[in-house]
Amino acid sequence: MSTLADQTAFLLTCDRLRAVQRSTYLHDGGRSENSAEHSWHLALMALTLAEHAPAGTDVNRVIQLLLVHDLVEIYAGDLHFAVPDAAHARQAQAEEKGAHALYGLLPEGQRAEFHALHAEFDARWTPEARFARALDALQPMLLTWGEGGLGCVAREPELTATRLLILKAPALTAFPALWTLAQEVVQRAVESGTLPP
Amino acid sequence: MSTLADQTAFLLTCDRLRAVQRSTYLHDGGRSENSAEHSWHLALMALTLAEHAPAGTDVNRVIQLLLVHDLVEIYAGDLHFAVPDAAHARQAQAEEKGAHALYGLLPEGQRAEFHALHAEFDARWTPEARFARALDALQPMLLTWGEGGLGCVAREPELTATRLLILKAPALTAFPALWTLAQEVVQRAVESGTLPP
Repeated sequence: MSTLADQTAFLLTCDRLRAVQRSTYLHDGGRSENSAEHSWHLALMALTLAEHAPAGTDVNRVIQLLLVHDLVEIYAGDLHFAVPDAAHARQAQAEEKGAHALYGLLPEGQRAEFHALHAEFDARWTPEARFARALDALQPMLLTWGEGGLGCVAREPELTATRLLILKAPALTAFPALWTLAQEVVQRAVESGTLPP
Repeated sequence: MSTLADQTAFLLTCDRLRAVQRSTYLHDGGRSENSAEHSWHLALMALTLAEHAPAGTDVNRVIQLLLVHDLVEIYAGDLHFAVPDAAHARQAQAEEKGAHALYGLLPEGQRAEFHALHAEFDARWTPEARFARALDALQPMLLTWGEGGLGCVAREPELTATRLLILKAPALTAFPALWTLAQEVVQRAVESGTLPP
C-alpha cells in the first residue's frame, strides 16, 4: 500500500498547480488562467491538432509531456515569456530544484520516468517535445487574439505584433501550419486594434 | 487552412469548460474546482496510477478519454454524483445534445473520433473507460478526505461514510488497490471527524 500512498501524496501536491496563475487570460477575458487548466487545454490541443505534427510524432507522448510540463511551477512559479535571459536562467535553477522535490515524492521506481518527461520537454530533445513546445507557444496567442479575443493592450501595453512574432518564431516556424495560423492571428489582431503593430 | 480554423474554433469553445464549476473543492479547501482543471488532474492520475490498472489497459487511451470526458458539460453543466436517477436521465439527454453541438465544430473527418471517445467513456465499454471512471470516482475523495483534507460537512451535511461508499462502489470495486485506498480514506475521515459515519 505504500506505493499508492506515495503516489497519492504526489497527486495531492500536484493539486497546488491550480494555484499558479499565468499572465494569459481566458478567451472571454474574465480572469487569468492557472497552470493546471492550461495544461489540460494544451493536452486537448495536442489531441485535436495531431495531424499538424510531422509524420511519426507520437501524440500520446506529446500529451504526457504537456500534462507534466508545468508541474515544477508549484515550487518555481510561472515566468512571463518576454522576460530577460537572466530571469530565465534563475527560473531554470528553481525548476530543477522543484523537480527534485516534487518527483522525490513518487515511489523510487517512478521518479526517473517523470524526471525524463520533464527533461525531454525542457531540452526539446525529441520531435514530441518540440511539438509540445509549439502548442505551448500557440495556445496563449489563440486565447488572447483568436477569433473574438480581446487582446491584452491594457495589461501589456508594450507588447507589439513584431515583438510577439520574434518571441514566438523559435518554437513555431518548424510547424508550417501552426506558424501560418500564428501569423494570421497576429495580422487580424493588428487590423482589429487588439495588438499594436 | 479551413481544417485548422475549425479545430481552432473547437478549442476556443472548449476553453469554456473552465467556467463549469464542480461541487468538489480543491484539496486546500480554498475554492471549488472547475471541470477543465479536474480533467487535467484525472489525466495526471491516470499517468501516475497506471500500474493499478489491469494488465493490458492502454493508459494513453485512458488519458484521452479523461481529457474529453467532461467537454459536454460546456452545454449541460456538471451534475452532483448523489442526485436521483431522473436527474441523471435528463443530464444524459442534455449531454448527448451537447456532444453533437460541440463535436460538430470539428472538421468532418475528426468528429467520429471525438464522439467515440465520449461514447466509450459514457458506456464503460472498455477496460480503459472503466479505469477512467474509477479515477473519476476516486479523485474527489482524495481532494476532500485525503491526507490533510478538510471534508465537506458544512457544504454537504447529509453525506455519510456509508452513503459515500455505496455510491462509489460500482466504479471502484473492480480495482482492488483503488477500492482499498478509497475505504481507508473514508475510515480515516470518519476517525478524524471530517465525515459522519
